[in-house]
Amino acid sequence: MGEFELIRRHFQRPLPAGSSAVVLGIGDDCALLQPSPGHQLAISSDMLVEGRHFFADVDPEALGHKALAVNLSDLAAMGARPLGFTLALALPQADNDWLAGLARGLFALADAHACPLVGGDTTRGPLNLCVTVFGEVAPGQALRRDAARAGDDVYLSGRTGEARLALEHLRGTGWALAATGAAGLNAELRARLERPTPRNALGRALAGAGAHAAIDLSDGLVGDLGHILLASGVGAEMRVHDMPLAPALRELPLAQRLECLLAGGDDYELLFTAPPDARARIEAASVRSATPVARVGHITAAPGLRWLDADGRDMPLAARSFDHFA
Amino acid sequence: MGEFELIRRHFQRPLPAGSSAVVLGIGDDCALLQPSPGHQLAISSDMLVEGRHFFADVDPEALGHKALAVNLSDLAAMGARPLGFTLALALPQADNDWLAGLARGLFALADAHACPLVGGDTTRGPLNLCVTVFGEVAPGQALRRDAARAGDDVYLSGRTGEARLALEHLRGTGWALAATGAAGLNAELRARLERPTPRNALGRALAGAGAHAAIDLSDGLVGDLGHILLASGVGAEMRVHDMPLAPALRELPLAQRLECLLAGGDDYELLFTAPPDARARIEAASVRSATPVARVGHITAAPGLRWLDADGRDMPLAARSFDHFA
Repeated sequence: MGEFELIRRHFQRPLPAGSSAVVLGIGDDCALLQPSPGHQLAISSDMLVEGRHFFADVDPEALGHKALAVNLSDLAAMGARPLGFTLALALPQADNDWLAGLARGLFALADAHACPLVGGDTTRGPLNLCVTVFGEVAPGQALRRDAARAGDDVYLSGRTGEARLALEHLRGTGWALAATGAAGLNAELRARLERPTPRNALGRALAGAGAHAAIDLSDGLVGDLGHILLASGVGAEMRVHDMPLAPALRELPLAQRLECLLAGGDDYELLFTAPPDARARIEAASVRSATPVARVGHITAAPGLRWLDADGRDMPLAARSFDHFA
Repeated sequence: MGEFELIRRHFQRPLPAGSSAVVLGIGDDCALLQPSPGHQLAISSDMLVEGRHFFADVDPEALGHKALAVNLSDLAAMGARPLGFTLALALPQADNDWLAGLARGLFALADAHACPLVGGDTTRGPLNLCVTVFGEVAPGQALRRDAARAGDDVYLSGRTGEARLALEHLRGTGWALAATGAAGLNAELRARLERPTPRNALGRALAGAGAHAAIDLSDGLVGDLGHILLASGVGAEMRVHDMPLAPALRELPLAQRLECLLAGGDDYELLFTAPPDARARIEAASVRSATPVARVGHITAAPGLRWLDADGRDMPLAARSFDHFA
């Protein structure tokens, strides 16, 4: 199987319904997209490397899902509508079964978001997937990191920490094995790590609901919130007891529970801010997008990040964000 | 040096003059671009892997240049104006000197094309560079592979084959060492491999000069021309003796000379077609873009690719295109 046959067999297929922006897809020097008149283009790129972002024996269907999901999540965090994506793929060898699985996971998610594959590259090399995703957003509607204002509420979609617990289980970490039990990693917990749900419906609803800043949680809540605070020149007071707690995390020792909740990484939930007078609209956006959101803190004019316990007392936390080169 | 410090130190810098499309650059979940009203977005992605696309000891400045150049070349082949690019980078380690060299080569070319870095990703892993580039083109002006028509002239920018000769020299191949001489690889020949010149000024001029189809030569002329013929449902008669011949190729044995010329790969020249009544406009586009072009064949209604010698006789050629998985 040559390079072009590989592409034709696994990656060239009809455009999904609703992907009207694609003028020209796979097979030319460039893809051509026609964004809606006046709209801005939102672009994000994420690279997944074997041994860093996934285990060598990962289910290829889950990997295909995740490679696109983490990119769609960036569009969600800007409030942008997906238009399409490219996939650049380095493969140690051309394994048909593996590629078919990868394509299945990739296209199932792409179809669900009307976000077609429009181009890319294939080469031989250590396994590496680089997805670049394109979306559109009306001028002034993008949810930027620098848009948080003192007095804003801080919201979290879904809940954090399960992906980290699943990761530690797969790594064989003692406390995670103890918590997840002798029966092994259950499917739901594994899916939180391997098949994250990007929050695009919520992100788009938020852009029209008066939300200010947003970020998607990939490196852990504390670090990712830090990006908003730094970019916006503000601080935050966060309430640990208002953070939704997954059942799987309840039995963890406190230190590990907080580590998972606040610095877990790979959550792909949205953390966002909105002024108190937007609460009804945020609630409506949550309902419309069928995505739970919780109010977990507020933005302060004074810089710095404080975590408060149920009694409003400061909790000293050591949690920090994931860093590939730290 | 952590991940964000690495980005700040090496990749975050002021936008080059003329890059007015960038609404939001590095540092948020997505970059935001504002294309010109009504224009289409042209997108291409190329992944460069150590050992496949470059040698481990390559000058990082040349590598930075090439990673962007091969992508700009795809925009050139569509006739699109560059707007910006993303870089996803997997690095075995964070080596400041190496990164500074890479950034130097990357930004020198980016500045020359007013094509700013707007985002990307950095991670640890086997060395891999994935650039995705964005350009714009007016509707109907893109130079597509399926647009060649019977009777069109076939043109080539610059000349082919030197990159392949340089590659074979660096590989230590006997005939290449014999041809390049005891003095070793000269700087000009090495630059043809390591610092290709994307033909963007020509590509944009062609889009307004009535050219039909175009492709950039990355895998070798024969294979790349084959993509145009297949997509357009046509054939071609090509004249070997009209192909510009670099001085370095003149002393090669015939078989190797033809291999370099017609299937060399890594040329990053434009191969394009235009109707005979556009010859004066093509000539003007060549002059305006200061890029030599040569008429080297013509498109036929009958499918198939024929190569003719100086006497108009068929030359049987075994040359074929590069394929990562063949």
